[in-house]
Amino acid sequence: MVEAGIAFGVMNAIGLVAFAAVGALKGSDAGLDLFGVAVLGFLTALGGGTIRDLLVGRIPTSLQSNTEVLFAAAGIALAVALATRVEVDESRKLSSANQNASRSGDGDLMESPAVLLPDAVGLAAFAATGAAVGIEAGLSPFGVVVTATLTGVGGGSLSDLLLARIPAVLREDFYATPAVAGGAVAPPAVAAGLSVGATTLFAAGVVFGLRLGALRYGWRLPTV
Amino acid sequence: MVEAGIAFGVMNAIGLVAFAAVGALKGSDAGLDLFGVAVLGFLTALGGGTIRDLLVGRIPTSLQSNTEVLFAAAGIALAVALATRVEVDESRKLSSANQNASRSGDGDLMESPAVLLPDAVGLAAFAATGAAVGIEAGLSPFGVVVTATLTGVGGGSLSDLLLARIPAVLREDFYATPAVAGGAVAPPAVAAGLSVGATTLFAAGVVFGLRLGALRYGWRLPTV
Amino acid sequence: MVEAGIAFGVMNAIGLVAFAAVGALKGSDAGLDLFGVAVLGFLTALGGGTIRDLLVGRIPTSLQSNTEVLFAAAGIALAVALATRVEVDESRKLSSANQNASRSGDGDLMESPAVLLPDAVGLAAFAATGAAVGIEAGLSPFGVVVTATLTGVGGGSLSDLLLARIPAVLREDFYATPAVAGGAVAPPAVAAGLSVGATTLFAAGVVFGLRLGALRYGWRLPTV
Repeated sequence: MVEAGIAFGVMNAIGLVAFAAVGALKGSDAGLDLFGVAVLGFLTALGGGTIRDLLVGRIPTSLQSNTEVLFAAAGIALAVALATRVEVDESRKLSSANQNASRSGDGDLMESPAVLLPDAVGLAAFAATGAAVGIEAGLSPFGVVVTATLTGVGGGSLSDLLLARIPAVLREDFYATPAVAGGAVAPPAVAAGLSVGATTLFAAGVVFGLRLGALRYGWRLPTV
Repeated sequence: MVEAGIAFGVMNAIGLVAFAAVGALKGSDAGLDLFGVAVLGFLTALGGGTIRDLLVGRIPTSLQSNTEVLFAAAGIALAVALATRVEVDESRKLSSANQNASRSGDGDLMESPAVLLPDAVGLAAFAATGAAVGIEAGLSPFGVVVTATLTGVGGGSLSDLLLARIPAVLREDFYATPAVAGGAVAPPAVAAGLSVGATTLFAAGVVFGLRLGALRYGWRLPTV
Repeated sequence: MVEAGIAFGVMNAIGLVAFAAVGALKGSDAGLDLFGVAVLGFLTALGGGTIRDLLVGRIPTSLQSNTEVLFAAAGIALAVALATRVEVDESRKLSSANQNASRSGDGDLMESPAVLLPDAVGLAAFAATGAAVGIEAGLSPFGVVVTATLTGVGGGSLSDLLLARIPAVLREDFYATPAVAGGAVAPPAVAAGLSVGATTLFAAGVVFGLRLGALRYGWRLPTV
């Protein structure tokens, strides 16, 4: 299980960098200043786990350990470098073309596998960690679903709220549902005799598989 | 006092169903998908009590007990059934009339006594519970008003925030004020020698009476 | 150091009155009713410290002590008196002039030294208190920056969120940056042997100096 622990740590690190970069790019697209971009990056990467820790009565690890913060900072730095570059490219294009072009460079990037795959890895690692924390805190199955889902999508949703937008996960895409499923399978797995460690890996696999399926086949939930 | 305890449990259950249904309908009206509708339903019913528990340093009961969750789920199911039905009715109307009709079916429903009365019962039960929790945690009178008000109107306000709207209670209607009053009467009642149980019932009566009066006579607070 | 403690208490009181007044005026400008105006006033003054207390696992002092609440209430009362007065003045102007005039009276007031200076004092006192709380809770340097910044700008940002606006500090002005700097200098100061009390005063000085410089010279952060 040592290898599994290392694999999980790597997944978590990939997720922190990817989430922070996505959050920072979102802030840059919304015209925030450098402080706002950093806030959105850190919040997207660390916000979900922070709310989860509050819900189970712990002081958030994001405020105590330096490791998560460093990975998130790396993601923000990456995003700032990319945003600056896209802007330079676009001002070149703009001088010879349409002044009203949207900053489509970032939009394309957000839909590229270079962002979507690490993001799916992060979603799986975060939601599975959230499920494990909920189980260790003795929460009900509903509570475990809540901590899994919030850890997976809470940071991105907080970022959307700071931009005065309806969180994207509430209305489109099959993004939160894999996290919900990861949380839902965990209590039965533990009840069936799996260790919390094995349950975490199993939940991560469920989340990742469903998210990849959603990306591949364009799954969506119905509106009501 | 056993009967009083049962009466209070019934009020709480009515409130959970009503709040969850109102939240889910709000999500459905805003075009959210099934996940978003469920989030708004659960958050409207359980969100106020969850924030209150965080403020007094407890792990939220909503994540530990199953009872509240089941009542909230019943309210969401009810709302989804209603929303689907209204939509069917409206598509019939639409085929013979104005394509731009708003989904007024839900709007009318929200203003009908079938929603407003159970909602007022829930407001009373929730605000009174919040006042009792604040008193038991040893908060100041201001703190008791905060826990009463947040328990009563916090879930609906969080739902409004998720929809990127100014919480309705901040600008219109006499809805939060009864909850404030319920919190404000509790510390003097306890100081005057009433038990916490009796104070809770008294506070619930104050909230319910003021809310009914507001509905009957159209009370409003002034703007400044 | 007794005088320093008194000076700090005075700074805190000035900040509570100023923050509450600014929040209440913002609510009044947005057309909220009296409850909404009070919520925005209390939230702007007490919200940052409340989130900070939650993050370090304490029951918020704002719900336990009466002192902070009284200063905030004074700020709200001041704002309501001012808003009523401005409205009267403007209806006079309106009867002889343009019906579409914005309520520029409040806008001018917000930019006047009578608001900006006490607000800067409050920012310094709040951010420095937040840094001290973070250090005493054993947070990482990043955690101390978070508690300092949230204590300084969290209440105003929550108020902006309730008004469905992007928090002003995320995109303009050099307002959060002084709070970040105040948090950033605190852990090295303690590591260098300064007492927490002396560090708090030092951090407050850094915040106040940077904020005054920003007001005087129009500093801004770049967008990316």
